[in-house]
Amino acid sequence: MEKIDLKEYSIFFGNPAESLSPLLAQDPGARLFVLTDHNTKIHCLPLVEPLLKGRSWSVFSVAPGELNKNIHSCIRIWEAMTQAGLDRQAIMINLGGGMIGDMGGFCASTYKRGIRFIQVPTTLLSQVDASIGGKLGIDFEGYKNHIGVFRDPLAVLIHPDFLRTLSDRELKSGYAEVIKHCLIADGRHWQELSGIFDLRAATWEPIIRRSLEVKRKIVSEDPFESGMRKLLNFGHTIGHALESHFMQTSHPLLHGEAIAAGMIYETLLSNQHTGLSTDKKVAITGYIQSLYGPPPPFDPDLLLPLMKQDKKNKEGKISFTLLRDIGESVWDVMLAEEELRLIW
Amino acid sequence: MEKIDLKEYSIFFGNPAESLSPLLAQDPGARLFVLTDHNTKIHCLPLVEPLLKGRSWSVFSVAPGELNKNIHSCIRIWEAMTQAGLDRQAIMINLGGGMIGDMGGFCASTYKRGIRFIQVPTTLLSQVDASIGGKLGIDFEGYKNHIGVFRDPLAVLIHPDFLRTLSDRELKSGYAEVIKHCLIADGRHWQELSGIFDLRAATWEPIIRRSLEVKRKIVSEDPFESGMRKLLNFGHTIGHALESHFMQTSHPLLHGEAIAAGMIYETLLSNQHTGLSTDKKVAITGYIQSLYGPPPPFDPDLLLPLMKQDKKNKEGKISFTLLRDIGESVWDVMLAEEELRLIW
Repeated sequence: MEKIDLKEYSIFFGNPAESLSPLLAQDPGARLFVLTDHNTKIHCLPLVEPLLKGRSWSVFSVAPGELNKNIHSCIRIWEAMTQAGLDRQAIMINLGGGMIGDMGGFCASTYKRGIRFIQVPTTLLSQVDASIGGKLGIDFEGYKNHIGVFRDPLAVLIHPDFLRTLSDRELKSGYAEVIKHCLIADGRHWQELSGIFDLRAATWEPIIRRSLEVKRKIVSEDPFESGMRKLLNFGHTIGHALESHFMQTSHPLLHGEAIAAGMIYETLLSNQHTGLSTDKKVAITGYIQSLYGPPPPFDPDLLLPLMKQDKKNKEGKISFTLLRDIGESVWDVMLAEEELRLIW
Repeated sequence: MEKIDLKEYSIFFGNPAESLSPLLAQDPGARLFVLTDHNTKIHCLPLVEPLLKGRSWSVFSVAPGELNKNIHSCIRIWEAMTQAGLDRQAIMINLGGGMIGDMGGFCASTYKRGIRFIQVPTTLLSQVDASIGGKLGIDFEGYKNHIGVFRDPLAVLIHPDFLRTLSDRELKSGYAEVIKHCLIADGRHWQELSGIFDLRAATWEPIIRRSLEVKRKIVSEDPFESGMRKLLNFGHTIGHALESHFMQTSHPLLHGEAIAAGMIYETLLSNQHTGLSTDKKVAITGYIQSLYGPPPPFDPDLLLPLMKQDKKNKEGKISFTLLRDIGESVWDVMLAEEELRLIW
């Protein structure tokens, strides 16, 4: 069984039978509460269910999609946890994409002031993004992850077989975070990644592990996002605004699609403000567009009000992480509105 | 300026002008958000407002009373925080009783995954109970503090002048926690306390400080309630159930009134199960009843279902903290339903 050991917990790779079962066996009396969405209940729960045999467990399912990552779903989850009679020794298992992990982790962290939870991310995005860092929460009033806490899981289980349950669009969405980790801090990986055009044919386990290694290093140096961890926000300042904006329309973007577009715009800003060469700007935006197509237009009047709510802003200026080079990035680049209107 | 220094923050006694002003001056750019209830907005805010002059600040007020310590109030508070444009550097000031401190602290701890907050408890109960320990949260589905987190404030300010704004009933309610701290761990204080029958005439600052010293010692040894901290639950297992039950009626109990009744019943249990002498049982229940009157009847069919939801239960048995003597207590006494039906 391959694993990455973090300070507070481990990330296990491969079949949950080899990781979940021994983990649960350490605490035979704990009640288990599995959170799924309606899709992962059908497609992923059958892989996990046999391992829960003989335990006191229940499952609760919410409607899928980022739009349901809200306080009203939390209320329903807390109600279900209460009805299941979970005490403080109970363990919650969050089986799904980032929406399930973020929201389920938040509900676990606040139920009776916090019970333990195991993250079982089933999408590429959540496997590379949500496995490390302890960021939990929900969207609120159109703002992403506006309400939440920092808290570590008991363990994370990553099973590449779950990726087969994803659509091409979801797989591509997750890949945006892999590109991001490479661009901010792992330049040596760029040659290999930028040669991948058929995501179905990729061998995911080593790619995910290398990507997680970047995030592990950054988060371990700055668990509460007071400094270096902001590197992980490359593509996210504009990406989150695009995601929030399109969430209100009839054609919402997936998170990674928004981040891919955000990375294109923030690569342009990197060329303008932090010395990224024009050649590399072209290489990056070219590769991203070859996979994701051209980004939606950058409309400052729509996007700036959303960007102003970003948690990392200070005194009216908007905070960016930008690239100096492929694999080298810098955080806390504070740009004024006028500078953003010149993005093209 | 008198203060108690805890590991993570300090509790300041006396006029907020001498504590709040220097504290805020350290961070002149931070936006301030004051949470009050409709009563403390009128009676307590005027004492604090002059200290906020020249700052970017706003106030939001919620309806008073434990019944409003719920997720719907949180949603309104988070909305107001969002509308006030609070960023992560902002500081929330919770000006009110335990309900404001618990709920405001929870909202601050979850807004953008946590901003700083200052507790300014204005009732005796919240001054002696909520100043230490970092327990934050709201009631949910009739269960007390069912949703919440542990998180420390930036500072706590205790101003005995606020006690003059309280009714006799509220003052007496807060005094129940003072009695509790004495009974569980400060027997030498019993002679003095049990001679107090006129609460209006008491000199509160030294009483509050001594009471907080008990709590400080216990919480510092066990911040996350895995052991010793459960001592603080004396009176609370039955007290919380009574409070929850009467909350549904037309004559709700104040928290301290419920705890006083809970202490009477749990003193009887202490005599039955943990060797508290009959003389001391009589002294304790006599003093409490001289202040609070006889407790509401113990109806197991109404109260047991509520007690079963307690966060400290394990595998069907109900967890109590009981007294061995005045000033000596023991936690994790697990009693079965049948034993509780024999309480008289």
